[in-house]
Amino acid sequence: MRICLIGAGNMATQLGMALLEKGHQIVQVWSRTQQRASGLASKLNCPYTAEISSIISETDIYILAINDTAIESVLAQRSWGNTLVVHTAGSTPMNILAGYCINYGVFYPFQTFTIEKKVDFDRIPVCIEANTPQNLEVLNGLAQSISQNIKLFDSNQRQQIHLAAVFVCNFVNHFYAIGEELLVDKGIDFEILKPLIIETASKVVYQSPESSQTGPASRNDKIVMDKHLAMLADYPDLKNLYSLISERIIQTHK
Amino acid sequence: MRICLIGAGNMATQLGMALLEKGHQIVQVWSRTQQRASGLASKLNCPYTAEISSIISETDIYILAINDTAIESVLAQRSWGNTLVVHTAGSTPMNILAGYCINYGVFYPFQTFTIEKKVDFDRIPVCIEANTPQNLEVLNGLAQSISQNIKLFDSNQRQQIHLAAVFVCNFVNHFYAIGEELLVDKGIDFEILKPLIIETASKVVYQSPESSQTGPASRNDKIVMDKHLAMLADYPDLKNLYSLISERIIQTHK
Repeated sequence: MRICLIGAGNMATQLGMALLEKGHQIVQVWSRTQQRASGLASKLNCPYTAEISSIISETDIYILAINDTAIESVLAQRSWGNTLVVHTAGSTPMNILAGYCINYGVFYPFQTFTIEKKVDFDRIPVCIEANTPQNLEVLNGLAQSISQNIKLFDSNQRQQIHLAAVFVCNFVNHFYAIGEELLVDKGIDFEILKPLIIETASKVVYQSPESSQTGPASRNDKIVMDKHLAMLADYPDLKNLYSLISERIIQTHK
Repeated sequence: MRICLIGAGNMATQLGMALLEKGHQIVQVWSRTQQRASGLASKLNCPYTAEISSIISETDIYILAINDTAIESVLAQRSWGNTLVVHTAGSTPMNILAGYCINYGVFYPFQTFTIEKKVDFDRIPVCIEANTPQNLEVLNGLAQSISQNIKLFDSNQRQQIHLAAVFVCNFVNHFYAIGEELLVDKGIDFEILKPLIIETASKVVYQSPESSQTGPASRNDKIVMDKHLAMLADYPDLKNLYSLISERIIQTHK
């Protein structure tokens, strides 16, 4: 397919590279800033623009891989004709596109993307939704070209999945950062946490998180928890988080 | 080495199996309950007892793989002679053993263990500490027989590592459980979160958690965050956690 990529961030970069690798043609990249547009265009070996008025019409699909907050303002600045337009945002309903496009949908690769780290799309769930069966068929074909794991979800389901992702990915990653912070403050290398982090994640593949739960809160070990709270005296926000999450684990495992 | 294993929980089970596999002899298992003692003893093909007075003396080392809270009470119920005694608890200082033993130390395999899931010890950091260089040498040899990753830490450092582990393992796992809870409530299979969980963890091997941070809080996207808070109206505790952690991410990424 001919693909016009609107956006040049983490999602646009990884998705663009995966699509190109599978033989699709990226016909143009647009980004708000010239520098980001040209940066991604050079990776995808394609033209670019920073002007919405210069976005070309000769494409089979527009993929809006931009922040939820930017979608409507970009949509409003141009008419999209009959061409299929999709966004890639977890928490934005498909219907946001209804006022601006005739053929539209959502193409949501469910993964965490950063510009630097290449991602193997093969097993990434790609959640699709479209305003007509025909458009859904097109999106299904596009999704199958990069992944074996296609999911049909409506906007409500997708929003719930995105909310769950904030806990299991964004917040989890912040907890990795907290771990690093606690060690660095005492001159200990973050390296030591890596086998534990990998094992903790690997377990979810084999057993439910509830049956994997270990640690002082799961056995209601107040002596260790009090020791930890005392050690967090200099980190009032972490102390608060420690109490709240421990309490939730205690309640779950009672 | 001849090893007497005090305890029959997650740690005792996985450590006992790893030691047996590497050619050590488990001479006896003790547990407070007959059933648990016999359960582990059958896996390790060794005698067992539920009586502290029946713990044998013919061993090269006692490994106390029991809860932090139980260590002192077990120590106090028997005399340990000249035999090396170690505990495996992250948050308990080595000195707790000083009043009860002549030769003592800590042998702390830094991983999350559950009884059911076998663990490959090869790359697990084993943190050791001992009251004499000779005892440290013995523990170093024992650790090297099961792992290539030996670390010397004192009790303060080990406690800090254990505190960090609560965030990156126990709390992270609880967040996986929260993800499952949020999806199950809407009839969506937890399966969809697995590739994201694995990728999020894998990233720490290649880049610092701070540079991996994605999601609405990292870009201070108030529209999405407000949407999520509204979706959490029925989960006041999760709503509170969502706000606190998002605020911390916003502050970090400002």
